[in-house]
Amino acid sequence: MASYQDQKEELVTRLNRIEGQVRGIKKMIKKEKYCVDVLTQIAASKGALNKVARNILENHIHGCVQEAIGNDNGEEMIDELMEVIDKFTN
Amino acid sequence: MASYQDQKEELVTRLNRIEGQVRGIKKMIKKEKYCVDVLTQIAASKGALNKVARNILENHIHGCVQEAIGNDNGEEMIDELMEVIDKFTN
Amino acid sequence: MASYQDQKEELVTRLNRIEGQVRGIKKMIKKEKYCVDVLTQIAASKGALNKVARNILENHIHGCVQEAIGNDNGEEMIDELMEVIDKFTN
Amino acid sequence: MASYQDQKEELVTRLNRIEGQVRGIKKMIKKEKYCVDVLTQIAASKGALNKVARNILENHIHGCVQEAIGNDNGEEMIDELMEVIDKFTN
Repeated sequence: MASYQDQKEELVTRLNRIEGQVRGIKKMIKKEKYCVDVLTQIAASKGALNKVARNILENHIHGCVQEAIGNDNGEEMIDELMEVIDKFTN
Repeated sequence: MASYQDQKEELVTRLNRIEGQVRGIKKMIKKEKYCVDVLTQIAASKGALNKVARNILENHIHGCVQEAIGNDNGEEMIDELMEVIDKFTN
Repeated sequence: MASYQDQKEELVTRLNRIEGQVRGIKKMIKKEKYCVDVLTQIAASKGALNKVARNILENHIHGCVQEAIGNDNGEEMIDELMEVIDKFTN
Repeated sequence: MASYQDQKEELVTRLNRIEGQVRGIKKMIKKEKYCVDVLTQIAASKGALNKVARNILENHIHGCVQEAIGNDNGEEMIDELMEVIDKFTN
């Protein structure tokens, strides 16, 4: 069902790292670290989340979307895909 | 030092929530949840990080930046500010 | 070849408007209009370009990409698609 | 009034180029050029608009904002600044 299943371990590793980054940001705030340093860490976490999303999106299109189109029911899948792309676009 | 210090508690609460979201995404991946559902959660976490960053940035400008300018050493502070804005812009 | 061909007229109309917006921004700069007003207009033009891109992307996936997949040569098309999505994502 | 006034000529030159790019995109659509090529051009124009905005924003902070703060009325100016930063952030 999940097109990213071959990358599962790598994705979990990356999310562990992101979880650690977020915890780190929380600590920085508790210790009242300098604003710009906190912002830099937040930007890094966002970048890391984007990479995870990019990987899942790519697998989704190669997997789920391609399969649905092959089975002649791509239209709905593509509408759903566009909606999720919108969430990462601006 | 940290211009956001009055919002510290609120920011920590929000980051606890984001940490929970990231942990939730990790679980979704472990359970091979549907790609689009995972992507939707990632977009939500990014949005939540953005709100935290927005808050810190606003406090930084009202606090650190305004103070530096008042003390006639705003130039460097503004250069640093632009660099961090770049990290959130596209 | 162009999956957006049914929307051609609408797209041209929108691009005419964007061209006018850009010309307007140029005039504002020549007249040294207030920075924030110029920035607001730039943001509006970017938003309008994004809508055009969104429309073309959607037609591309429903058209070119779906057709390529139907003809069993979707892989390359999807790689190309991911590259162009990257240009609009962050 | 316009903090970017020293860069006026350069900004006008850049906007002339962007106007040309937008006109080029319009022609591509009229000729039904390949979707991905059109999207690539749109992304380039957005990037060029972002550079112009970045330049104006930087001048605005060094100029208008710094001056307002120096005159002890920075608060409103900073609120306005945050609103315009929001338009370029995500």
